[in-house]
Amino acid sequence: MDVTYRPIGVLHSPFRDLSEMPIQPTSRASAPGTAEIFAEYAEGLRDLDGFSHVILLYHLHRVRRAQLTVVPFLGSEPRGVFATRAPARPNPIGLSIVSLLRVEGRTLHLGNVDILDDTPLLDLKPYVPAFDRPAQARAGWLEQVQGNVGEVRSDDRFK
Amino acid sequence: MDVTYRPIGVLHSPFRDLSEMPIQPTSRASAPGTAEIFAEYAEGLRDLDGFSHVILLYHLHRVRRAQLTVVPFLGSEPRGVFATRAPARPNPIGLSIVSLLRVEGRTLHLGNVDILDDTPLLDLKPYVPAFDRPAQARAGWLEQVQGNVGEVRSDDRFK
Repeated sequence: MDVTYRPIGVLHSPFRDLSEMPIQPTSRASAPGTAEIFAEYAEGLRDLDGFSHVILLYHLHRVRRAQLTVVPFLGSEPRGVFATRAPARPNPIGLSIVSLLRVEGRTLHLGNVDILDDTPLLDLKPYVPAFDRPAQARAGWLEQVQGNVGEVRSDDRFK
Repeated sequence: MDVTYRPIGVLHSPFRDLSEMPIQPTSRASAPGTAEIFAEYAEGLRDLDGFSHVILLYHLHRVRRAQLTVVPFLGSEPRGVFATRAPARPNPIGLSIVSLLRVEGRTLHLGNVDILDDTPLLDLKPYVPAFDRPAQARAGWLEQVQGNVGEVRSDDRFK
């Protein structure tokens, strides 16, 4: 059973190329950007101001093929793709938790975007600490290297 | 531009009906469940053990129609759907951060599932504190009521 979605908007950022992009919103290279929600969905944005962060789900439109084993940006060993955040997934859905600076009509001003310009936005959810923040979390193989997220940049290995 | 995804597996839980379901993984009613990954994607599970939590993205297959304004389970006022976690979204993609108890072949044993039995799984990502945990977060209209997530159950209003 395939499922089909239609984008609700488009993401804009300074990143036009996969090289040298931030690999997560918490990268020091992440940058302000916007989400432009299409007019037909604007009504759904009511009450969004007041949330400091939103969860963006988007279609990783520049991924050409899935890989089940990847060498992720953090680390040099091959890993199962579902144990990584690499974009070359069977269903290339990206997830970023970014800060919401303000809502201006159908435009969301976002604080720390790690997403390519012109990426199709599929869904937008409020980040809610009581739902989304496990008290204690172990990060498996990433435990030792997750701290490098601030420095490491992407390249086009998953194009 | 529509995007089409094919499920990578299926989620199993004790919840066969929308009534009385937990509304989030942090509900006291959430329960152990499993994710069965289809054989063709099994290779991608390597290195997943070691992570205490995973992010599940799934297709909310029982939602029949999108609503841009909803009355969410928490609260009694109408809200814009993108300011809520209600399932009746334009693209009904569900997101839950659940605990990963163990990986057994292609079966993931999950600790606190808030998802209907037989839900199609679209993607599976490791939860990584350094990527996914904003230091300070305000939850807008949910600020006052998010603490009730433990008690409130769902009903079939979004069917």
